[in-house]
Amino acid sequence: MSTSVMVIGAGPAGLQAASTLSHLGFDVTLVEQQDYLGGAVARHQYQVLMPDFSSGPELLSRLIERVDNDSHITVYTGTQVEEVSESHDIFTIKLSGANQKTLQSQAVVLATGFDHFNPARDGKYGYGLFPDVITGAELEEMFAKGPIRRPSNGEIPQSVAFIYCVGSRDRQVGNTYCSRVCCAVSAKQAIELREQLPKARISMFYMDVRTYGLWEDTLYWRSQEEAGVVYVKGRIAEVTEQHGRPVLKGEDTLVRGPFEWPFDLVVLAAGMEPSGGTREMADKFQVSLESHGFIKQAGAIHNASLTDHPGVFVAGAASGPKAIEDSISEGDVASLAVFEYLKAKVTL
Amino acid sequence: MSTSVMVIGAGPAGLQAASTLSHLGFDVTLVEQQDYLGGAVARHQYQVLMPDFSSGPELLSRLIERVDNDSHITVYTGTQVEEVSESHDIFTIKLSGANQKTLQSQAVVLATGFDHFNPARDGKYGYGLFPDVITGAELEEMFAKGPIRRPSNGEIPQSVAFIYCVGSRDRQVGNTYCSRVCCAVSAKQAIELREQLPKARISMFYMDVRTYGLWEDTLYWRSQEEAGVVYVKGRIAEVTEQHGRPVLKGEDTLVRGPFEWPFDLVVLAAGMEPSGGTREMADKFQVSLESHGFIKQAGAIHNASLTDHPGVFVAGAASGPKAIEDSISEGDVASLAVFEYLKAKVTL
Repeated sequence: MSTSVMVIGAGPAGLQAASTLSHLGFDVTLVEQQDYLGGAVARHQYQVLMPDFSSGPELLSRLIERVDNDSHITVYTGTQVEEVSESHDIFTIKLSGANQKTLQSQAVVLATGFDHFNPARDGKYGYGLFPDVITGAELEEMFAKGPIRRPSNGEIPQSVAFIYCVGSRDRQVGNTYCSRVCCAVSAKQAIELREQLPKARISMFYMDVRTYGLWEDTLYWRSQEEAGVVYVKGRIAEVTEQHGRPVLKGEDTLVRGPFEWPFDLVVLAAGMEPSGGTREMADKFQVSLESHGFIKQAGAIHNASLTDHPGVFVAGAASGPKAIEDSISEGDVASLAVFEYLKAKVTL
Repeated sequence: MSTSVMVIGAGPAGLQAASTLSHLGFDVTLVEQQDYLGGAVARHQYQVLMPDFSSGPELLSRLIERVDNDSHITVYTGTQVEEVSESHDIFTIKLSGANQKTLQSQAVVLATGFDHFNPARDGKYGYGLFPDVITGAELEEMFAKGPIRRPSNGEIPQSVAFIYCVGSRDRQVGNTYCSRVCCAVSAKQAIELREQLPKARISMFYMDVRTYGLWEDTLYWRSQEEAGVVYVKGRIAEVTEQHGRPVLKGEDTLVRGPFEWPFDLVVLAAGMEPSGGTREMADKFQVSLESHGFIKQAGAIHNASLTDHPGVFVAGAASGPKAIEDSISEGDVASLAVFEYLKAKVTL
C-alpha cells in the first residue's frame, strides 16, 4: 500500500505541495472548502502578480493543470474536514459535503491560507459607508473586469489614494504584525493604474515603505520614477466624505502638518489575517497557534513547515503573511519535510 | 551509476541543498572555497540568530553534521571551481587546490552567497578612520568574543548608534536594492546589546524600518518597549570625530531638524552584495545576472531556484539578499528542482 498524505487548502502553497508530494511518490488527497482551486489568487481574480508582473491566470493554470493531470492526486472541492482522530501516527479524517468519506493519512499539510482584514471593522476608514473607498482586493477585481471607474458615479478617477497598513501594525484592531506584501502590492497596483489613468494624481499614505530586497527598484522606485506616484509619510486619522468624495484627514509626519485631502478613489491596503480555516484546522489537528492566530512554526529557522504536532506540516500564509512566491517555495519545503518524516519512520 | 550533483558553496543554503539532494537519492559533491563550512554564519561567528534568537553554532552543527555523516556527500573545502565545460547536459568540472580533480555532474546548485558591503568604499561613514565605527558583522564578532567595549579605549560604551542602509538603497554607491534583513538584524543586535549595557542610549537611524511580517513584534516593538531603543528617521550626511568620539551629522526628517550627535560606538548596518564567487560561478556556468549582479531568477514566481541555464540552479543569497531561514528553504527548493529536472530527462 502506498503512503497517503492529505493537503488541506488549494491555494498556491497547497497546489504546489500536492504536486511535489506526488512526485516524491505519495498518494495525495487535496481538500478544498471552496468549489474552485487557486485560493486567494482565484478568489480575487488577480490578473497581474507582484513582484514580477507575471500573469495570475497563467500561474494558476500551471499549478492546477499539474494537479488535475496527476493520477496520484485526488481533489475534493466544496469539502471540509469534519472530524480528525489519530492512532499510531495515522490520521483518520472524515470529510464533509458531497464527499462524505473517511480517509486515512500518514501526514497532513495545512495550507489553509489567509483572509483579508475587513476594513469595516475599523470605522475610521469609512469602508462600507462611502462607495469610493475600496480594498486592494476589490481593485484587483476591477482590474480583472474592466476599466477603473469610481463606484459612486462611474466616472474616471482623477485622483487615487492608497492607505497602507489597514488592519496591520495597528494595536487598536488587534493586529500588531506587518502583512509583508501590501506595500509592494500597492506599488504594483499604482503602476498598473497609471497605465489606465495617465493624468490621475496617485498618492500613497504610508508608515514605512517595506518594498524589501529586490522589490525596491522594480516596485518602489519604478512607481515613483515611471508612474509618478507620490509617497506621503503620514497616518490617516479618519476618512470622511465631502461633496460626494472621500476626504483623508491625517498628519504628514515628514512636513509636520495636518492635511484634509479629497480623492476620487481611496484604496485600502488591507492586511492578512489567519483564515477561519486555519484556526479550525489548527484546532482539529491539535497544532499550536502563535500570538496572532497563525499556525506556529515549531522548527523556526531550521524548517519553515514544522508545527508542534508530528506528522502535521504547514505551508504558505497559514503560518503568517507571505508573498505568493514564498508560499510556493513553502509547498516544496513542506513536501520534503513530509518525505523526511515518513522516511525516518520507515527506516527507524 | 548514480546521478551526481555538485553544490557550490557551503553556507546554510548549500549545506541544506547537499543534505536534501542526498536524501533524494543523488550523489553530491559539495565544494567550498574557504577551509571551513557554514558560510557567513561561520565567518562572522553569529551566536544568536535573527529572527528567533536561536543559536548560530547549534544551527551550523546540525547542518554540518548531517553533511559530514552522509556517505553520499563528498565535501571539498579550500577548493574552487577552475574550469567548466558542458556536453550532452553533463558538466565536466575541474577543481583547484589540493583536490585537483575533474568531476562530472548532471546538475549544479550555485549557493555562493553574499559579501557584506565594505563601508570604507563610502567615505562619509568614517569607517576605517575612526576606531569606534564598526560594522554589524564586527559587532557579531564582538558578541562572540567577549564583552562589548569601545575599540578605541576599551571602555564600556554609554551610547550606541546604528546607521541603517549602509551600502543599500543608495544610488551613490551603486546599490539601489534593499538588503532585506539589516533592519531586523540591527533590532536583534540592539536587544542583545541592552542585556550587556543596561544604561546605554541606543539609537537607530533609519529611512524605513523594514521588520516585515511577524518580525514586527518580536524585533521592532520588542526593541523599543523592552530594550528602550529609540528610532530616529533620518539620513546621516557624515560621520566625523570630536574629542575621540564619532559624531553623526544628519537631518531628522520627522522633526525637520539637523543634528550633530556624538556616540561612543557606531554600528553600520552594512548591506549584502553579490559575492565574488557568485559572479565567477555565474560566468563559468553561463547563467545571467540581474541588474545588481545577483544571479537572475528565471522562473521568478514559479520556482525560486531556476536560472536561465538548464541544469544550473541557485539557492540562498546568490540570487539576492535573504534571511538565513529563506536560504535554508531555498536549499530545499533547489534540490527539488534538480530532482524534477533530472527525472524529466530520464522519463522523456
